Amino acid sequence: MRIGAPGAERPVVLLPDGRHLDLSGLTDDIDGEFLAGDGPGRLRDAVAGDRLPEIDVVGQRVGPPIARPGVVLCIGMNYAAHAAESGSDAPQWPVIFYKAPNTVVGPYDEVLLPRGSAKADWEVELAIVIGRRARYLGSPADAPAHVGGYAICNDVSERALQLETSGGQWSKGKSCETFNPLGPWLVTPDEIPDPQTLGLRAWVNGEARQASNTKDMIFNVATLIYELSQVTVLEPGDVINTGTPEGVALSGRFPYLMEGDIMELEIDGLGRQRQRVGQA
Amino acid sequence: MRIGAPGAERPVVLLPDGRHLDLSGLTDDIDGEFLAGDGPGRLRDAVAGDRLPEIDVVGQRVGPPIARPGVVLCIGMNYAAHAAESGSDAPQWPVIFYKAPNTVVGPYDEVLLPRGSAKADWEVELAIVIGRRARYLGSPADAPAHVGGYAICNDVSERALQLETSGGQWSKGKSCETFNPLGPWLVTPDEIPDPQTLGLRAWVNGEARQASNTKDMIFNVATLIYELSQVTVLEPGDVINTGTPEGVALSGRFPYLMEGDIMELEIDGLGRQRQRVGQA
Repeated sequence: MRIGAPGAERPVVLLPDGRHLDLSGLTDDIDGEFLAGDGPGRLRDAVAGDRLPEIDVVGQRVGPPIARPGVVLCIGMNYAAHAAESGSDAPQWPVIFYKAPNTVVGPYDEVLLPRGSAKADWEVELAIVIGRRARYLGSPADAPAHVGGYAICNDVSERALQLETSGGQWSKGKSCETFNPLGPWLVTPDEIPDPQTLGLRAWVNGEARQASNTKDMIFNVATLIYELSQVTVLEPGDVINTGTPEGVALSGRFPYLMEGDIMELEIDGLGRQRQRVGQA
Repeated sequence: MRIGAPGAERPVVLLPDGRHLDLSGLTDDIDGEFLAGDGPGRLRDAVAGDRLPEIDVVGQRVGPPIARPGVVLCIGMNYAAHAAESGSDAPQWPVIFYKAPNTVVGPYDEVLLPRGSAKADWEVELAIVIGRRARYLGSPADAPAHVGGYAICNDVSERALQLETSGGQWSKGKSCETFNPLGPWLVTPDEIPDPQTLGLRAWVNGEARQASNTKDMIFNVATLIYELSQVTVLEPGDVINTGTPEGVALSGRFPYLMEGDIMELEIDGLGRQRQRVGQA
């Protein structure tokens, strides 16, 4: 985890027993360099050797669990039922777009409606954080070695900007400030033996909106990393939002977000997010 | 300018008389922090006071003139004749997409065809580098104060990935490694009194391909920065590729790029690029 004010977060480890340990003696931050330089291995050794001091984080802000991702790469229409509710066919190839990385905020930070916004929407997603550079992988079997960890993401979207005034390119409705709450935890792959069996759920004001499972992905985690590595170079610290299941406001079944709404999102083994909706 | 091996470039000033001065006593690098912290003002004072040592750059690589952009934000279909040759109507709003920032390379570096590529294409563009954070600007008149400088960009594109296997989202054909040669120079706005009067030209193997003028942009530089600031937060060091004029291979009038081809690109006042096409 990363704990503290925006831009001044301190790296922390959460133990299964609920204690937090201060990681700042081992690394300045949790970023691509830490993941690529076997930071998680050194972290495990330090925990096993009881070399990290306990730290009290009560009342402190939780930041996003990775600093300065080079990109936030998103996969569109990766669950068949969501493609259908959005009026699209299931894709034959992974659909790729980017959002600005400065949209990444902490899991409990306020999400701001853009000025003039009327169609802001939630999207619970499994986020992959890349741990090792991936370029032209030989097969999907090579992909798991490039995963640094997993986290919950809310791929917040403004549908008018994404679909009505965008000329068809979705990034315009995806890159508004605060539009990518991430975390609370970066969970290393050893704790997620199979990323394709995770329940993922979202609520607005306590009412269920999304409830699905990563087994329903059209392109699974390994296939996505393999396919992406054929068309771009993935760098340590990069974030991949793997797509959202059905149950968003775009479906017409639920109202869009209003100021004061509360979003909650959860993925098995990755914790839980909660954001209040504010106004930019 | 930034001179030296990839990732180890040194900041340099090119004077009108052709001499190069070493900037590394003033700043470690030319990046968003340098631009936002009045680096260009300190640079001008240091040049005026004759406080920077001359440096010999002969035979050294020229890097991209800005380090680590947070985003490379692209504007699609911003010249009417290019929209027409691509089979599109002129847009009512700026069309926005992103490419991965690790595509940025130097102006003379090799551009690599992605494996299996058959439709790689050139795009000469005026690139804006943001100098000051821009969020909800009040009007286009506020935009010029947020410009850190201008540079030439080649927004290299693989049309099969962009248009045929993309599900309609263009980023897939824009984010391949080496696909964003930038520079050679970052030219500060005082040297470009009007960014809407610049001739821009491209050649392949010495044959003219693109020849237009930034006066033909549908959305001009000030309008783009204003409009973008309503939907995202622009940060110092961010790069905006402002769109390409007519004369690309996608038009059907010219063949796509082949290994060994030579691209040359030029914009009035911003210098000239030259890239050999290689194979990834």
